[in-house]
Amino acid sequence: MPVVGLVVHECLFALRIVWAPKIKGIEYETIFEDLSNKSPSLLHYNPVHKKVPILIHNGKLIVESLVILEYIDETWKETSLLSEDLYERAMARFWAKFGDDKVVTSIFQGFFLKEGKEKKKAMVEAMKHLQFLEDKLKGKRLFGGERIGFVDLALGWLANFISIFEEVVGLKIVDEDKFPLLSEWMKEFSDSPIIKDNWPPQDKMIAKFHALYDATIAAAAASK
Amino acid sequence: MPVVGLVVHECLFALRIVWAPKIKGIEYETIFEDLSNKSPSLLHYNPVHKKVPILIHNGKLIVESLVILEYIDETWKETSLLSEDLYERAMARFWAKFGDDKVVTSIFQGFFLKEGKEKKKAMVEAMKHLQFLEDKLKGKRLFGGERIGFVDLALGWLANFISIFEEVVGLKIVDEDKFPLLSEWMKEFSDSPIIKDNWPPQDKMIAKFHALYDATIAAAAASK
Repeated sequence: MPVVGLVVHECLFALRIVWAPKIKGIEYETIFEDLSNKSPSLLHYNPVHKKVPILIHNGKLIVESLVILEYIDETWKETSLLSEDLYERAMARFWAKFGDDKVVTSIFQGFFLKEGKEKKKAMVEAMKHLQFLEDKLKGKRLFGGERIGFVDLALGWLANFISIFEEVVGLKIVDEDKFPLLSEWMKEFSDSPIIKDNWPPQDKMIAKFHALYDATIAAAAASK
Repeated sequence: MPVVGLVVHECLFALRIVWAPKIKGIEYETIFEDLSNKSPSLLHYNPVHKKVPILIHNGKLIVESLVILEYIDETWKETSLLSEDLYERAMARFWAKFGDDKVVTSIFQGFFLKEGKEKKKAMVEAMKHLQFLEDKLKGKRLFGGERIGFVDLALGWLANFISIFEEVVGLKIVDEDKFPLLSEWMKEFSDSPIIKDNWPPQDKMIAKFHALYDATIAAAAASK
């Protein structure tokens, strides 16, 4: 029985667990869930969060995408994502978490969800967070050095979603002049063979985020 | 040079990195920071978050308490906190994260920070989250089984802070009838030798949280 992953395309955290098994050459099946119509298997497998992504391996399920990513790395040791160096491992875990907790939140709030003062504050935060990532890339092609590592996969959503956000909200977020290394990394990462072949359809993603953005604006206007 | 940890007593996430090195018998020094007057060394060592806890080992610093906990476990392998079983390791990481993301947030919002409908909703969430923890303890003395493990240390704040919260807000949160296993675990955990000897002074903690709670109530009243 192959390893199975349940994911949705519009989830920022899902693609990392589509990419990781392919990088490692694991026999792997991806099932795309529709969150507006949750399948019985999703509710059965993840009663705590009722969320994807989920990895099913040997009949057991693992949830939380970074936990899954680390499980994949520990179980299939070929083409390892985390360094053997213990300090480097800790740093990779830190930056992956920083991406999920800080970068995602500030970009969503700054460019998507909030208005007025809160929006402005979150936008400033987002720029500060992106600057930390820019600094991390000094002297490196990828966060993992010469090949894709744990942090590259964890931040992969940036390469994938930023251009969608930018198109939907009509603003430049990762500016090439301001963030040259991050812009270069986004190209480098998304042009890598396995990543490129497993990229969600951009036009559908834009349509979904447009609908979400319009609904957010309408809800904000209605609550005024 | 011993390993050094920078922590504050009132931080829910700090005690885990005081307990872990002691459980492993590492030569370890704890520095207690005052967050209202951040030391130059804190600002120097953690420019990203400017937050504690921090671990300093071989002149390098690690931040984020769960990242630190895992670093400690990988570096000093004696009395391991995470199981050797890869699925169990993933589960431990999941529940530790669940504690930090879901349980902390719902308890703080439900019993401390929010008012009205939001408060009620968060209280319901908090009870649901505590029930998941109660279920995890079926047939076990501790989350780690017969000895303290990764999840016990990660959830240690519950054993420590719940009685403080309860005293400050005047409500029972972890009721013995509703959560008998969790109540038993809280006693078992806090009575363990190393945990007991490294418990912050309860009266000072109550005074601090009382002040915080009163300020929150006053701010909420002023904004009405």
